[in-house]
Amino acid sequence: MARYVDVHHGFEGVTAEQLAEAHQADLDIEGAEGVHFESAWLDPELGKVFCLSTGPSKEAIMRVHEKAGHPVTEVYELTAEV
Amino acid sequence: MARYVDVHHGFEGVTAEQLAEAHQADLDIEGAEGVHFESAWLDPELGKVFCLSTGPSKEAIMRVHEKAGHPVTEVYELTAEV
Repeated sequence: MARYVDVHHGFEGVTAEQLAEAHQADLDIEGAEGVHFESAWLDPELGKVFCLSTGPSKEAIMRVHEKAGHPVTEVYELTAEV
Repeated sequence: MARYVDVHHGFEGVTAEQLAEAHQADLDIEGAEGVHFESAWLDPELGKVFCLSTGPSKEAIMRVHEKAGHPVTEVYELTAEV
């Protein structure tokens, strides 16, 4: 298991409620991929969402997000944190 | 006070120890700006560091990082998190 940050673009004007719905959509299906989305942070002015997760691979992260309706291409594998 | 994610580029090959040193350099001076850097995550393969912080403004975040020796231009103000 590794830890990841992924970055979504184009989320300008998204509300806190929509963020919560999108996050719930991930939580609802993540188990099948062995992924867990821990946190997500929204900047609706610049349209970014950052997700922190654990999982077996970048591809597993991407599959969950894609199936939940908000695909990403930008996923970073984290080797250290402070 | 608001919450921020900022993104550093060009950190390819950085070690966990170097990340900890860079984070400590922020902690040592952040108080003067009313900023607190909570967490930082490193992807040394793609050279990214993501920092989560609180503070009074983007500019305050940028000043602390610049004075600590690792300036950023990419700072996102977070209005929601899950």
